[in-house]
Amino acid sequence: MVAADQIRRCVQGSRKIPEDLFEMIKVSLDGKPGIFRDTYGPGENAGHRVMAEYAGRAGLEVTRDAAANTYMTLPGRDRSAPRILIGSHLDSVPGGGNYDGAAGVVAGLTSLAALRAGNIELPCDVTVMGVRAEESVWFQVSYIGSRAALGTLPEGALEARRIDTGRTLFEHIAECGGDPAALRNGAPVLSRDNVRAFVEVHIEQAPTLVQRRQPIAVGAGIPGNFRYPEARIVGRYDHVGTPRRFRRDAAMAAADLAMVMDRLWARHEEAGTPVAMTFGRFHTDPAAHGLTTVPGEFGFSLDVRAYDAGVLSGLENKMLVAVERIEAARQVKFELGPRASAPVGPMCPKITAELNRGVAAMGMDAGSLHSPASHDAAAFSAAGIPTAMIFVRNENGSHNPLEAMDMDDFLEAAGLLTWWLASCVE
Amino acid sequence: MVAADQIRRCVQGSRKIPEDLFEMIKVSLDGKPGIFRDTYGPGENAGHRVMAEYAGRAGLEVTRDAAANTYMTLPGRDRSAPRILIGSHLDSVPGGGNYDGAAGVVAGLTSLAALRAGNIELPCDVTVMGVRAEESVWFQVSYIGSRAALGTLPEGALEARRIDTGRTLFEHIAECGGDPAALRNGAPVLSRDNVRAFVEVHIEQAPTLVQRRQPIAVGAGIPGNFRYPEARIVGRYDHVGTPRRFRRDAAMAAADLAMVMDRLWARHEEAGTPVAMTFGRFHTDPAAHGLTTVPGEFGFSLDVRAYDAGVLSGLENKMLVAVERIEAARQVKFELGPRASAPVGPMCPKITAELNRGVAAMGMDAGSLHSPASHDAAAFSAAGIPTAMIFVRNENGSHNPLEAMDMDDFLEAAGLLTWWLASCVE
Repeated sequence: MVAADQIRRCVQGSRKIPEDLFEMIKVSLDGKPGIFRDTYGPGENAGHRVMAEYAGRAGLEVTRDAAANTYMTLPGRDRSAPRILIGSHLDSVPGGGNYDGAAGVVAGLTSLAALRAGNIELPCDVTVMGVRAEESVWFQVSYIGSRAALGTLPEGALEARRIDTGRTLFEHIAECGGDPAALRNGAPVLSRDNVRAFVEVHIEQAPTLVQRRQPIAVGAGIPGNFRYPEARIVGRYDHVGTPRRFRRDAAMAAADLAMVMDRLWARHEEAGTPVAMTFGRFHTDPAAHGLTTVPGEFGFSLDVRAYDAGVLSGLENKMLVAVERIEAARQVKFELGPRASAPVGPMCPKITAELNRGVAAMGMDAGSLHSPASHDAAAFSAAGIPTAMIFVRNENGSHNPLEAMDMDDFLEAAGLLTWWLASCVE
Repeated sequence: MVAADQIRRCVQGSRKIPEDLFEMIKVSLDGKPGIFRDTYGPGENAGHRVMAEYAGRAGLEVTRDAAANTYMTLPGRDRSAPRILIGSHLDSVPGGGNYDGAAGVVAGLTSLAALRAGNIELPCDVTVMGVRAEESVWFQVSYIGSRAALGTLPEGALEARRIDTGRTLFEHIAECGGDPAALRNGAPVLSRDNVRAFVEVHIEQAPTLVQRRQPIAVGAGIPGNFRYPEARIVGRYDHVGTPRRFRRDAAMAAADLAMVMDRLWARHEEAGTPVAMTFGRFHTDPAAHGLTTVPGEFGFSLDVRAYDAGVLSGLENKMLVAVERIEAARQVKFELGPRASAPVGPMCPKITAELNRGVAAMGMDAGSLHSPASHDAAAFSAAGIPTAMIFVRNENGSHNPLEAMDMDDFLEAAGLLTWWLASCVE
């Protein structure tokens, strides 16, 4: 067993690595606030280039797969043994923060540096994976890089179009040096057979750790979700004075559904069942709306997430019942459009227990935390690979330019990861 | 008393006048559906030019006032006696219908033609008024032309900017041949002293008459309203997974308010109290919203109308109480922005009774109808001038290109108006 204080020294000694790497991947759009590491575009490419160049200089083995994911490997004693994967994504939402995703890659590289600084040799390869295309905002498909590597990309994903460029995922992957045609057969490069564990460090995307005054937490589970990214309500535009019985008001229908879901959420909350619902886009048509016009159309997106498959399907059923009731009561038609979903991602109890032991051994202040957000770890968990997560405290939420992570908090996470690699793998 | 069948013959004989006039004022924008008679712009100017040129050819006296309203007068026996005004507006919403407003001006001109065809001389002048700028969508101020003539323009109205041109009402009036500086002193050209009655023919802006299968109705009252044209809710943008207790979701706050108002509306409806509420603009920010982002801002407009001042103030108070409750419960801030309002416009019981006698005398099929919409008549009623309205059946609602009025229905309204002019004035 490697001593906790040795781990701490090695990780603290590597502090300049994350400081430099985070600085080098700050890609922005001219004149816009926040980070712009666009999925399968110049921003994300820059993130992968920075990591690969650092890894090359550090003497790690650097490879890519057909989806242009980046793998940076520290060889272990038995090169043929299933490897440990440490990873997260290098893309961001438009105008996002610098640490969402990237922290997990940088934490892996920091841990490898610390292990080498401590001359700690591992029994198997440890690979840091820079994952592509986690943020679903770009192609309306989530976990693209992970699922491409795991052979679980959903049907038709390669034909999805990036919302801003209008070009397909196939084209974008090819432009970024990947081999999208090879992804068509779905043969996985990662599987239960060659990956022993997947551990992801990620900033928390809510302020629970800020509230708890704890720098890090061990993940307790990743929510599954169902989504309607492009739902519409069609009613009828009418004059502002139109009496109630004649109205087919699309905006009131939307508000009605939103409040139905909100009451369901409040009820789950009271019962102690974690759930989250977001109508991210929720709008009348800017080209047609006005003070004196009853809205005849309404667009919205809906994301519902929970940690239990039964809770999710119960919520979706209740939503569909409400839609039917509202259609009849308000003389409108819902066009829910494409539906997407992600399975609930349970954490591996064994690795989670090991991480909790690490918290105690290192004398850290950390508890357990349900992830509010989805993560690549969910794709690995769904593929049957033992998966765990470590969350880092983050100010001001994420997916916005004000996201803020403290370097000391980050090094706690890298320290716990290093302890786990050093202590639990034999 | 002039015989009803003589009135009918004279009005039917004038049928070509409204047919031609409605055809000549169809101003549209290239490639866009619907009518575009923009307030104090080329579209509205065209409407006034068509009416004035017709009136000139027909031998009526044609004048304008400082607000560029058009007056077309058939002299009566006593030129110094208070006159009867028949009128409505000649502007339209963008992409509106051809009859909203214009029908009232054309009805007046048709009646004058019918009176002359029947050699019916009136004891006082009858003036058809082509009113400017009734549609509030352009300057976010309603009844501009009427209120300018009545000296009741609200403070600051001349500095209001047209939403599309960005130029002030002052500039627009000057461009259209008016004298906006003369409006600053607020001296009325129309008042109780020189106007004996104001009668407005207008298409119904809801399908009640379609449902009743009646061509026309006598107006029972014009709603007052309160409006918040540019309200905002400020919350905080957050990641889609943010737990409920941390959220400051501006869209859910908006949906909450909308449903509070909707329940109030339903309750008034059950109690038989006519009310209408419209959140015409109701939207997240297209530049910032997305599937995976909790909305941090929300924009909306609200128009609430009723026929009773106490009902209106009760609704507004309940709204403000709800806003306060929602601000606290959902950690958001409402910025209601500028407030506008229009007083309830009661109809003159005497003229309304006379019109109802006309319905009987002419053997017409017509009932009584509360106006769903606001009208210039409300401004005249508010100024203490005895006011009445006649509504014409209209298919497909108004403020849209599908608005449709039948010429036979229109001639019923013109017939009733002519009967009233011929029979009740002595």
